[in-house]
Amino acid sequence: MKKSLLKSKLKQIFLKHKLSKNHAEICSHYLTKAEILEAKGHGLARLKMYCDRIKAKVINPKPKIKIKKISSSISYINADNSIGYVSADIGIKQAIKNAKKTGIGLVAIKKSGHYGLSSFYAEQAVNNKLMVFCFTNAPAALAPHGAKKSLFGTNPICFGVPTGKVPFIYDASTSIINRGIIRRAEKLGLKIPYGVALNKKGKITTNAKEALTGTQLPIAGFKGSGLAWMVDILSGVLTGSSHGGKTKDPFDDFSGPQNMGHLFITINPKIFIGNRFVKEMQKNIKLVKKLPKAKGFSNIFYPGERKNKTYKKNLNKDISIPAKILREMEKLNAE
Amino acid sequence: MKKSLLKSKLKQIFLKHKLSKNHAEICSHYLTKAEILEAKGHGLARLKMYCDRIKAKVINPKPKIKIKKISSSISYINADNSIGYVSADIGIKQAIKNAKKTGIGLVAIKKSGHYGLSSFYAEQAVNNKLMVFCFTNAPAALAPHGAKKSLFGTNPICFGVPTGKVPFIYDASTSIINRGIIRRAEKLGLKIPYGVALNKKGKITTNAKEALTGTQLPIAGFKGSGLAWMVDILSGVLTGSSHGGKTKDPFDDFSGPQNMGHLFITINPKIFIGNRFVKEMQKNIKLVKKLPKAKGFSNIFYPGERKNKTYKKNLNKDISIPAKILREMEKLNAE
Repeated sequence: MKKSLLKSKLKQIFLKHKLSKNHAEICSHYLTKAEILEAKGHGLARLKMYCDRIKAKVINPKPKIKIKKISSSISYINADNSIGYVSADIGIKQAIKNAKKTGIGLVAIKKSGHYGLSSFYAEQAVNNKLMVFCFTNAPAALAPHGAKKSLFGTNPICFGVPTGKVPFIYDASTSIINRGIIRRAEKLGLKIPYGVALNKKGKITTNAKEALTGTQLPIAGFKGSGLAWMVDILSGVLTGSSHGGKTKDPFDDFSGPQNMGHLFITINPKIFIGNRFVKEMQKNIKLVKKLPKAKGFSNIFYPGERKNKTYKKNLNKDISIPAKILREMEKLNAE
Repeated sequence: MKKSLLKSKLKQIFLKHKLSKNHAEICSHYLTKAEILEAKGHGLARLKMYCDRIKAKVINPKPKIKIKKISSSISYINADNSIGYVSADIGIKQAIKNAKKTGIGLVAIKKSGHYGLSSFYAEQAVNNKLMVFCFTNAPAALAPHGAKKSLFGTNPICFGVPTGKVPFIYDASTSIINRGIIRRAEKLGLKIPYGVALNKKGKITTNAKEALTGTQLPIAGFKGSGLAWMVDILSGVLTGSSHGGKTKDPFDDFSGPQNMGHLFITINPKIFIGNRFVKEMQKNIKLVKKLPKAKGFSNIFYPGERKNKTYKKNLNKDISIPAKILREMEKLNAE
């Protein structure tokens, strides 16, 4: 399907589900973007879930989002249980504004929901010539080091920097492998690698189905577990949102809003060394890229480079949509 | 040796090496603290190196440290090639002051050197009821993902949060194992685990000696490599310090000052949810601790808990000093 057609169909569906024109536009934009980036787990596969949650009144289609100004640098957003895309879009724009004015911005968002990829928002800050951290919590999927049950989300760390060329955007979960890979292995009847997940009884499993009902493991034992915990504190505790495993799974738990939290920190990277920053950043990347390569590598990519290649590759292509999702879209549009 | 005696001996040595009273006090304080924490690699083993670098004029014993105020939140420190402890001590105090005033502090330090453990500084912010990030770069020890040669330092990520009880302080390098463990394995003739280091030719080695002349590997492949890169950008590029593998090894390279960079970000955690913050933080820790334990675990520790136990255990004990270091100290004191 053509991207413009997909986007307008999505917009129509969101409008039918009572979103404002502006919010329907924002949501269809990010959902389409996830598809272009081949981040299928954050794309159309979530459309029905959003609509279902609106019908169940655990997403507010007409949120009254309040932005509280704490200082010129710091803002606090109550998303009023909006779709995450909407509040995160408002939040990052505020964080950009704050850092442009004062050199540093800090924006906390509470009462939000799943917002897609952190890199969506990091990219906007970087395009505004800012350095940025994006943190979000997520439903329980990861066992803290020493536990045999999920509590942390796959809690990504996202960090972006302008380079004058393709943005440096690190965006990685603190789990050893992505949940999407396990879901795919389950569908295709494949085994998952040893040591990445536990079954319900707390034993290491290579069975994808068992892993999904069990728990994933964090990268590097206590190190990754500590990083996931850090993200839970930054996006959950600090922002006044759900934390400690209390974030509801958007697909399975309709007992209330997700109450997810996000935190954005934006920094003007020229604040210390001025225009030299971008030059030094380019020098930095060159120094890494010219290192002798390990076996099997012909290039050293910096974070964000591969995703950028995917984006460019798909930008002028149509988006292929599975029949099942096409039917879902038709149904949702007829509602 | 009694801690008070050790500290006064260290102070005397630093005074003989032309440090001011105040700076000699700061340096002897942190060196002693590293010993109490059993972080031997950051303790007395470094004393002779500091003195040697002063003699070689690549550490400035009488630095004119300048603090440039960029805003009430942001400061930029030129450490004038001081010992790292001195500039980091000044830097964290400034970052604390800034966050207390405005809710958020950002302090960059350039022309600095090795500063011991990041947790030294994180702890001070946490004791002032602040949340904190500490970043520092370090001499090349870690190969970027895809390379077979060191470029990044072991670049730790340090994050601290007040809990009302023992501080939550995450402080971990982005390498799979600490360099100190490899050095110890070399001394004792032990093998190191498979997959944590490469030899000079870029092949995985379990030989500690080969690992030391080769390179260590980052945690979790591209994920850890990206985090190490992030730390290099934050502490090196952003602050106007050495980066991209250019930080000099303090033991081996006397061709000039280290020009290391540090970055501190401090946040008042009450800024969004007020006094509820500490309560929520305690709830968060309780939720994690009460999870069913994995095999071999009787407790789930949060970052900083173990180090705090070590500190308390050793606080009223004397410090045992190897004969070799005692002789070094006598010599340095006689200079």
